[in-house]
Amino acid sequence: METQNHEKVTVVNQIKSRLGNIGNAITGVGAEARRLGQEDPRRVVHAFKVGLALALVSLLYSFDFFYDGFGVNAMWAVMTVVVVFEFSVGATLGKGVNRAIATLLGGALGFVAHYAASYTGDKVEVILLGLSVFVIAVVTTFCRFFPKIRARYDYGLLIFILTFSLISVSGYRNDEIWDMAYGRLTTILVGGSATVLVCLLVCPVWAGEDLHKLTASNIQQLGTFLGGSLLFGRVYFQEEAKDDKNQALLNDYESVLNSKGVEDSLVNFAKWEPRHGKFRYRHPWHQYVEIGSLTRQCAYKIDALNSYLNSDVQTPLQHREKMKEACKKIILESSSALRELAMGIQTMTCSSSRDAHVVNAKSAAAKLKALMKSGLWPNADFLDIVPAVAVASLLIEVLGCTVKIDEAVAKLASSARFKKVDREPNRELSFDKMQRTPSILGSHINIIVE
Amino acid sequence: METQNHEKVTVVNQIKSRLGNIGNAITGVGAEARRLGQEDPRRVVHAFKVGLALALVSLLYSFDFFYDGFGVNAMWAVMTVVVVFEFSVGATLGKGVNRAIATLLGGALGFVAHYAASYTGDKVEVILLGLSVFVIAVVTTFCRFFPKIRARYDYGLLIFILTFSLISVSGYRNDEIWDMAYGRLTTILVGGSATVLVCLLVCPVWAGEDLHKLTASNIQQLGTFLGGSLLFGRVYFQEEAKDDKNQALLNDYESVLNSKGVEDSLVNFAKWEPRHGKFRYRHPWHQYVEIGSLTRQCAYKIDALNSYLNSDVQTPLQHREKMKEACKKIILESSSALRELAMGIQTMTCSSSRDAHVVNAKSAAAKLKALMKSGLWPNADFLDIVPAVAVASLLIEVLGCTVKIDEAVAKLASSARFKKVDREPNRELSFDKMQRTPSILGSHINIIVE
Repeated sequence: METQNHEKVTVVNQIKSRLGNIGNAITGVGAEARRLGQEDPRRVVHAFKVGLALALVSLLYSFDFFYDGFGVNAMWAVMTVVVVFEFSVGATLGKGVNRAIATLLGGALGFVAHYAASYTGDKVEVILLGLSVFVIAVVTTFCRFFPKIRARYDYGLLIFILTFSLISVSGYRNDEIWDMAYGRLTTILVGGSATVLVCLLVCPVWAGEDLHKLTASNIQQLGTFLGGSLLFGRVYFQEEAKDDKNQALLNDYESVLNSKGVEDSLVNFAKWEPRHGKFRYRHPWHQYVEIGSLTRQCAYKIDALNSYLNSDVQTPLQHREKMKEACKKIILESSSALRELAMGIQTMTCSSSRDAHVVNAKSAAAKLKALMKSGLWPNADFLDIVPAVAVASLLIEVLGCTVKIDEAVAKLASSARFKKVDREPNRELSFDKMQRTPSILGSHINIIVE
Repeated sequence: METQNHEKVTVVNQIKSRLGNIGNAITGVGAEARRLGQEDPRRVVHAFKVGLALALVSLLYSFDFFYDGFGVNAMWAVMTVVVVFEFSVGATLGKGVNRAIATLLGGALGFVAHYAASYTGDKVEVILLGLSVFVIAVVTTFCRFFPKIRARYDYGLLIFILTFSLISVSGYRNDEIWDMAYGRLTTILVGGSATVLVCLLVCPVWAGEDLHKLTASNIQQLGTFLGGSLLFGRVYFQEEAKDDKNQALLNDYESVLNSKGVEDSLVNFAKWEPRHGKFRYRHPWHQYVEIGSLTRQCAYKIDALNSYLNSDVQTPLQHREKMKEACKKIILESSSALRELAMGIQTMTCSSSRDAHVVNAKSAAAKLKALMKSGLWPNADFLDIVPAVAVASLLIEVLGCTVKIDEAVAKLASSARFKKVDREPNRELSFDKMQRTPSILGSHINIIVE
């Protein structure tokens, strides 16, 4: 009797704990969903946009004139919406244009193949059509490996093979096939138009704008590492503790190291977009690739600096103090230059104060070099000095990278015709207002590892 | 008359130059195609495999029993082949499984929605169905932003929305819809099976194997930088000229810096693959993520070393000479350890000689530190010494990274049960035989910028 009771209690407990686990899992998913939505509210908007476009197109099924007109082909409209609707306007337009043109070309070629083969005998026809599908598939699939083609037309090539195969090997008679091709193209255009209209008109997400923001924010993050308020300098010279909050701020730059993938996608998408906001038609998107690559080079140096901050072997503080003034000057001026650059990209303006920062930083670097040459640590243990010397030389290299980024941004500024301004005095404020954009990475990119 | 002749000559010349341009373009495309094929011959094989699978499925159209049985649904078989066939087995299986399960679930749910709505009035039915499509699309699209879901089931969610919408809003009667759903699922299974069979049986490309090779080759490239035959050391101490060939070898490591994207894709694909070759079921693929991340950290240090090699400011050679022996020892031993690690991953063996290299390198590092402590350059200009000190401390850091990679590889070796071996004496030979694999990057990854 007691054993039975005991068993009952165990079973009840098990069920309770299972239910608890399920409850926890649901709460966890809810919390994660809230986090994803808060990180980038455009994700929620995007989900609703897809729903809207799909519901609109689905309703077309219900109108008799549409269904009667296109019959079973109407489903191509639904399919087009689901497959073509992407997060950004550029990605959607790219896929839409690819799909439309590829369907047209693939359909035309498929029709020709089908027509030509229909004049031969039954068995020859089958062999001819099979052969033509084989050849087209082989050639087109291989074309997808050409980097330039893949960057812009990968999806188009896929749809080209698809449409060609469907049309050429379909069992339809020649008069039917024309109707089918016409119907399919029309419904794809209906679905594509609905997609593009909803994507463009309801809170559009511009890949170009995100690329622009990401570029500015990456540069900004390097500047923040060096010193939102001279952060690296203050921590290195132990004026501020290396607590968790500071460490998190200092580690912000890490996302820059692996930003190449999403940057490349955004450049490809941006090229499809029409003029919007401050971006004219033929905005020099390729310039962002160069700036991004230089930013990452600078991030590698920053990574090295960071490892000295966390290293066990440190130059004693009294030795560090001797180069403090010169180092802090370089840090301050490089950081200001970087943040001024980020600000300039963000607002599409160029201000002359940036050059002043670079000039100041260069003269501070010259001073630091002279200082070290003069024998800054006459009686110190040589090995103690090594880390400090490495930090100093890394700072000089970061300055070098900053100058290179400055040149690349100047090129962008001239080809995208940034406005010349005298920066307002309350610019520290606007620096802080500049939005950090970690969300861009998670919203656009497709390759993610768990 | 002369003017006319002159004009004729001009026109002829223009035509000739245009034809020449077209000819050059064709030759260029041909050369590029040959390069792509030679870089990774599996690309050519892949193109033929897609052609084969598609031709096979297309031929099914020609058999009456298939076409009569499934009618217009047969086109779903063609579509499945085109859309699901990917370069690697893992990517293909992942897409295939996603497609099959999503079609099943989406179809079932769509059927339920369609059935339930059919019991209401005409107008209510339209509204109910439109609403259900909207809700499913919104929820599922938002789910695609969850990183864990996106990594494995992104394609499945897409197909789920697609199938649900197609089935639920189709104008079919309830008895027809069952036939359609059945027909579609069967044809998708036929197309999917043909795809998977061709992909698996004809020269299969394993994402897991490529990930494994890429990981080994990335570590190997770092080792090669330091010294295939002590390359960095010999160039730094000016025993060898920095000619174009050496520079190209030295810059080989650069592809490691941006390898994260393709590595993440390969990990996701590899998880779909069954046991193959030396890889058991549940091979610890996630370990490769850790090794890859440590390898990149090491690559950042190597990047810094490289920038010292190309810097204008150099420590005079006579000063460098003083630390040459100790540095070359660290370089030799770190490089040997890295290449031993690469070799070990490649052959799935672990040899004890690796530990010996690490121990030797550590003692050389201790020696170098002691040497510098003893005042290596008593009368030298301090500023002259800075770059040499930086190089020395970077070498010590590279050694630190090597130790970390060693530990991560040891974890992999124990969980993947690498064989214990005593490495053969003719191992230099096998190092050279180890294939460099730049081709992996271009064959799998989807995001490429022109």
